[in-house]
Amino acid sequence: MNNLVYSNNLFSGTREELVQILKENLSEKRFQHVLNVEKSAIELAQNNNGDIERASIAGLIHDYAKERTDDTFISTIKQKHMDPDLLNWGNAIWHGIVGAELIHDELGITDDKILTSIVKHTTGDVEMELLDKIVYVADFIEEGRTFPGVLEARKKAFESLDAAVGFETKHTLSYLINTNKRVYPKTILTFNKWVAE
Amino acid sequence: MNNLVYSNNLFSGTREELVQILKENLSEKRFQHVLNVEKSAIELAQNNNGDIERASIAGLIHDYAKERTDDTFISTIKQKHMDPDLLNWGNAIWHGIVGAELIHDELGITDDKILTSIVKHTTGDVEMELLDKIVYVADFIEEGRTFPGVLEARKKAFESLDAAVGFETKHTLSYLINTNKRVYPKTILTFNKWVAE
Repeated sequence: MNNLVYSNNLFSGTREELVQILKENLSEKRFQHVLNVEKSAIELAQNNNGDIERASIAGLIHDYAKERTDDTFISTIKQKHMDPDLLNWGNAIWHGIVGAELIHDELGITDDKILTSIVKHTTGDVEMELLDKIVYVADFIEEGRTFPGVLEARKKAFESLDAAVGFETKHTLSYLINTNKRVYPKTILTFNKWVAE
Repeated sequence: MNNLVYSNNLFSGTREELVQILKENLSEKRFQHVLNVEKSAIELAQNNNGDIERASIAGLIHDYAKERTDDTFISTIKQKHMDPDLLNWGNAIWHGIVGAELIHDELGITDDKILTSIVKHTTGDVEMELLDKIVYVADFIEEGRTFPGVLEARKKAFESLDAAVGFETKHTLSYLINTNKRVYPKTILTFNKWVAE
């Protein structure tokens, strides 16, 4: 998608300029990941009559804040008077929910659909619009992923985006439970909505 | 524990009278279950310097409401202005949280420790006192239980009640996730407190 021309004023520069910002802000490994997520997000958007430009931007920036320090997130939560419960969590939760604030402020991206898809890309949500599902699933199935089950996830993603949201949520939750990791409560609401009977 | 004499005025009658009430209100299978839970609860109380009489009463009555109709629970939730979100759930959640109200009203048991242990016996909670843990674990390990893992659960229960609370919570949650069953959000808070790192 190197020839994609941004024409909807969602980002103030070109795609190449946005890619360059990410290249400068992320490790090589994560930079490759966001390029892969962009690619999957665009494919999923094409497959679901979604917005290609938003898919590109959201895919590229979804991990924009992932390598920021804990202190950056903590001070952002405090300065913006975000839910103080966020302070009990860590990078895995912060880089989406708080990361969207950094994206807004630093990249000048103000589009609600894009920012919401960043907020929801780790935990999912009961309410998920098309772009939310695209980013959530693209992050899980991008071509660099190698976990057991990824082939089934990719197949599902192009058959039914909703089913893929459920598959991913169940997979993530099982992993967290099996490895005794704390579960962000919203993840259970996502499970109850997209997986449970 | 047929010779246990109730002497603390927690229940207005004798143990035998309470057992008779349960025999009349429960199916034979569930009646046997509550006798088993009482037995395990007393053993766990003895092992942890807990209150034997409360363990007996709570063990016997924890499923007092389990065979009541959905309509009974729904009207109780409404009449007592309980959290309307409860209406989105079912017997598995109601028989503890709403069941404690029926126990209070119909059996005249007003002891906070006992009623709280009934409320928490299905979902657990972040805050669990000794009796809460005893009833929660006794329900899981009583001698009629045959699920894979019950032997390990019994062993843990007499080594560390806290570890047994964690083991049970993880086991229950894994089952719910694997079988695509809705998870009551409080169960995740219990998991985060008693299992997760």
